Amino acid sequence: MKISIIGATGDMGYGLALRLAKAGHDICIGSRQLEKAQEAACKAREETGCDNITGLDNVSACKERDLIVISVPAAGHRPTLEALKDAIGDTPVLDVTIPIAFNPLRYAPPAEGSNALEVLAVLGENAKVAAGFHTVSAAMLCNLNKTVTGDLLVVGNDDETVEKVLALGNEIGLRGFHAGGLQHASTLEALTPMIIGMNKRYKRGHIGICLTGI
Amino acid sequence: MKISIIGATGDMGYGLALRLAKAGHDICIGSRQLEKAQEAACKAREETGCDNITGLDNVSACKERDLIVISVPAAGHRPTLEALKDAIGDTPVLDVTIPIAFNPLRYAPPAEGSNALEVLAVLGENAKVAAGFHTVSAAMLCNLNKTVTGDLLVVGNDDETVEKVLALGNEIGLRGFHAGGLQHASTLEALTPMIIGMNKRYKRGHIGICLTGI
Repeated sequence: MKISIIGATGDMGYGLALRLAKAGHDICIGSRQLEKAQEAACKAREETGCDNITGLDNVSACKERDLIVISVPAAGHRPTLEALKDAIGDTPVLDVTIPIAFNPLRYAPPAEGSNALEVLAVLGENAKVAAGFHTVSAAMLCNLNKTVTGDLLVVGNDDETVEKVLALGNEIGLRGFHAGGLQHASTLEALTPMIIGMNKRYKRGHIGICLTGI
Repeated sequence: MKISIIGATGDMGYGLALRLAKAGHDICIGSRQLEKAQEAACKAREETGCDNITGLDNVSACKERDLIVISVPAAGHRPTLEALKDAIGDTPVLDVTIPIAFNPLRYAPPAEGSNALEVLAVLGENAKVAAGFHTVSAAMLCNLNKTVTGDLLVVGNDDETVEKVLALGNEIGLRGFHAGGLQHASTLEALTPMIIGMNKRYKRGHIGICLTGI
């Protein structure tokens, strides 16, 4: 698949770029600045030994792709989507972002109820939107010496897009489950601040979620 | 411990009554109607072979207890708490209720943001409130032929109350974790409708959540 990752300079996006490139996909790292995208792509090629990673400005990165992964910091979420709406068109989107606030640590979603629903609101009701990877450790994805383990929970408004994302998860080592429609995105997103708190409380770094009874 | 379970005629409350009685605690089942409470207590004594289970009307059930478990249907949540506020006093409360709506299946919290925060709002800011058991299968708890397994995630505004609940979970077979403050209660409550949807999608009955990396 041709996959672009918007915001792959952050840990989650960069980790996904590494793992999906190693799985054989054609990866494009998008950034607002072409130079930053190319630097990240160069670093990722070196780390993986794969040459199937390129860097482009965000708008160019959204063209002619099979999947676009949104992995930008929460503050840039809405403006990034608004800027890329036309370039994204009807390409399926996977959102992996999480709106968090601190003091106290908590889930702080936008007016739409979740970042994933904000994607839908900005791109329009015909957009194919999935959300996932919220409970998968970015540090684990970034460390190529580690085997990726755990469960991947994905929600979405289009089953084909969700299945596509679950298949990608399988390829990199994650057991994947369709967790329902986009109304459940807030549940997945909200797990991240809870897990961050537990990592701190229990002095761990990679607490994750897996399903039992299945 | 002296534990009362308000609403133990439902599966989750009844399952907890069975398991906690077998663990040796003094269990009181509360119901609006004394007769219903006594019937449930009688059934629970027969099922467990334990004589440490009694039934009382809700108000009487809240007196002189170490922990009060709220396990009523979502529609009766607020009125039940308002009716029992004085009887509960400063006794620690564990809320195991979940506000769910259907078509589509979704989390439908009250204005406070979660049922647990509604408990706090009704009982007052000095109340000791924990919430947990949202991802533990009630059917598993009710079936005494089954060994209880899985993780118990508990949040609360009072660490001592949370630890008390985690200890109870341990006694009945659950690995327990303190998942943070009450602001995370909505996360735990919202997992239940997501899990219900996955049970349907994957044709399972007891999907649960466990933590990895800990």
